[in-house]
Amino acid sequence: MKIGIINIGDELLSGKILNSNQFDLSRLLQPLGHSISFGLVVGDDVKALGQALDWVLAKSASGDSMAMVDILVLTGGLGPTRDDLTREAVASYLKVEMQEDAKAMEWLSAFLKKPAAEIPLGQRVQATVPAGTEALRNPVGTACGFRGIINGIPVYAFPGVPAELKTMAALHLLPALPQTQILLERSLWTFGWSEGSQSSAFASLKLLEPFRFSSLPNQKGVNITLSCLVNIADRESRERDLDFLWQKLIDAMPPEAIVDLDGAPITLAVQKLLQTRKAKVSVAESCTGGGLAVLLTELPGSSEVFEKGYLTYSNQAKTDLLGVDAKILAVHGAVSEETALAMLQGCLNRSGADYACAITGIAGPGGGSEDKPVGSVWIAVGSRKLSVARRFHFRGNRSEVRSRSSFTALNLLRLLISEKLN
Amino acid sequence: MKIGIINIGDELLSGKILNSNQFDLSRLLQPLGHSISFGLVVGDDVKALGQALDWVLAKSASGDSMAMVDILVLTGGLGPTRDDLTREAVASYLKVEMQEDAKAMEWLSAFLKKPAAEIPLGQRVQATVPAGTEALRNPVGTACGFRGIINGIPVYAFPGVPAELKTMAALHLLPALPQTQILLERSLWTFGWSEGSQSSAFASLKLLEPFRFSSLPNQKGVNITLSCLVNIADRESRERDLDFLWQKLIDAMPPEAIVDLDGAPITLAVQKLLQTRKAKVSVAESCTGGGLAVLLTELPGSSEVFEKGYLTYSNQAKTDLLGVDAKILAVHGAVSEETALAMLQGCLNRSGADYACAITGIAGPGGGSEDKPVGSVWIAVGSRKLSVARRFHFRGNRSEVRSRSSFTALNLLRLLISEKLN
Repeated sequence: MKIGIINIGDELLSGKILNSNQFDLSRLLQPLGHSISFGLVVGDDVKALGQALDWVLAKSASGDSMAMVDILVLTGGLGPTRDDLTREAVASYLKVEMQEDAKAMEWLSAFLKKPAAEIPLGQRVQATVPAGTEALRNPVGTACGFRGIINGIPVYAFPGVPAELKTMAALHLLPALPQTQILLERSLWTFGWSEGSQSSAFASLKLLEPFRFSSLPNQKGVNITLSCLVNIADRESRERDLDFLWQKLIDAMPPEAIVDLDGAPITLAVQKLLQTRKAKVSVAESCTGGGLAVLLTELPGSSEVFEKGYLTYSNQAKTDLLGVDAKILAVHGAVSEETALAMLQGCLNRSGADYACAITGIAGPGGGSEDKPVGSVWIAVGSRKLSVARRFHFRGNRSEVRSRSSFTALNLLRLLISEKLN
Repeated sequence: MKIGIINIGDELLSGKILNSNQFDLSRLLQPLGHSISFGLVVGDDVKALGQALDWVLAKSASGDSMAMVDILVLTGGLGPTRDDLTREAVASYLKVEMQEDAKAMEWLSAFLKKPAAEIPLGQRVQATVPAGTEALRNPVGTACGFRGIINGIPVYAFPGVPAELKTMAALHLLPALPQTQILLERSLWTFGWSEGSQSSAFASLKLLEPFRFSSLPNQKGVNITLSCLVNIADRESRERDLDFLWQKLIDAMPPEAIVDLDGAPITLAVQKLLQTRKAKVSVAESCTGGGLAVLLTELPGSSEVFEKGYLTYSNQAKTDLLGVDAKILAVHGAVSEETALAMLQGCLNRSGADYACAITGIAGPGGGSEDKPVGSVWIAVGSRKLSVARRFHFRGNRSEVRSRSSFTALNLLRLLISEKLN
């Protein structure tokens, strides 16, 4: 089914709050093979919502691919305050009256634990719906939703409070959807492989409908996904086609760039590698101030692989906590290969861990020089057998330099532990 | 000016990523008195984007209030990969060819530090724009943007990577907008003061147009804002009215709940307090795994106040690094007042810092018991003169428990240093 979403609320347009409702609905519907045709955000405005309804319903009738939907979901504007206008807007579009719904009043009375007669008028409005539509129970809030058929298209209206929306969509929308299609998906993360190189590597691969490719970069790396929406009856043969194409993509990737063949993100991938080897890791962090340790302890089970770490922000701390020779710091500076390797050795020796990582760099905005500009970071990783230090120059502001340093360090740990460091 | 936004990307519709671009643009434009008419999200699809353009431009011509815009902003789909189709979609809508832009190639070549001839074809596409539009420089990424007039309406296309979008909108869009109104705003953070108590405290205060109040809770506390959008000519008198009302709000707040009267968020507030006293802080972290240290080193200048910290995830680490008596751990457990205070003492003694904080708790999802359920966290803060430990029970998943622990610890440090701990 193709589903359209209209989110209603001035606060969504004014930058007051980030709209998570489109995202949440997609996360609920996508795995069941339904797709979101579009997401539209409009303000708390009867006229604007009327125009939006008009647009969707007219486009659906004319068969335009983008706005054509099988179902339309409205979120927001059902609360008790004066800026909640979704009920009125739909009633006005349908040219019907609003009416108090008896069932909805019972729900509201039960939710507020008050007889209906004692509920103030301002609250009672949450039990009204446009005439001819059906009230939908909200088990986790005061405002009921409603559903009706408008111009032949089922329209659902749910409250905009995220927890209420998710509960009501699961309760009222999901059971009403036929499940005839399913989304098949293969996905993995790459790290340290530019999207430019990726584009060249994949250039000769042809992808025809219904297969869709996506490449999404963020600080964790690049998430590569191959997916197709298929009829349930075709599932088996499409799984085979998908696996065949997926393997072609994998074959075109440099093996060391693949974080985990099963799709684990880098934090989980490193934890899995350490768990498999029953090994522990320790860290010595300067400019990242604990950012790498936060990643290493992000997931349940991290106590199996991480016991201790050293935050050595100042030179003195590097000497006190890690035994870095003051001469090394004086001669080469805190941001140098020598210091990174000395921090690493101190960390390995003092922690007793099997693997370690040391980070020292200039996060900025101050502290840079021509020689060592802001963003210069030395990262050393090592075990009892092997130590390697690499110099990086990360772009971006202080927070980006710190985050990139932590994720790059994690990736070097991944390469070290899986013996792919070269 | 009325501004419309179209965000382009399958990942925005499929629940892969949360759309923050609409939000960021609103935050940029709103304070200058501009408003967002609508936000529309469509997939990476030439036809869908064409229909969306058609809709906006037709509605703008017909004067429909909702979709009528003075300026249209497109975000996303400008990268080098095969799912990046915005350039093609606009070219196809305009019935023009794509062409490589000489200036954009220079920018790309400078950004990649490579002669143009050595840039692979996959990357070069990022320097192409629809014929007749003007390439816009992207100082923080590889994909250029572009602007053109379509059906009389200025259309800007920017990359979808949030940092690139924000930079380019500030660089190219803001200077093109007239400024006749201005948003005046007073804002501060509270911490540890529930929105229910706030609502009671503020109940008797009346706010008339154009003054708007907002209260937005997040992990950093609750951000309280009083604002008004005014004509530039009225600015002075409105500033006075705003200051008068703002003082009334402040007078109704418990002083210890106010993070910083000048509006600094909690990270900056703590750093300022330490800098004023020329004091250092150290940390001993267990369940937060470095999360508090990350906050303490988030801002430039943090090296003046933070030198070292101890990540003691296991019991052994608490003994090795902080000298916590193994008996205390055996008798009271790692998550106890006694352990938190012993970690604090070890941290103060070994670091030599003026102030310290120790955190030990159960982040979950495993490890909880009836006595100490998941979310139980002991936080101790202290100086040479005073030590205090508090027990908390944080709701939420592992990541929320960790984040709440770190911010609550930071707030206890704030109260300790400013001598408001009671």
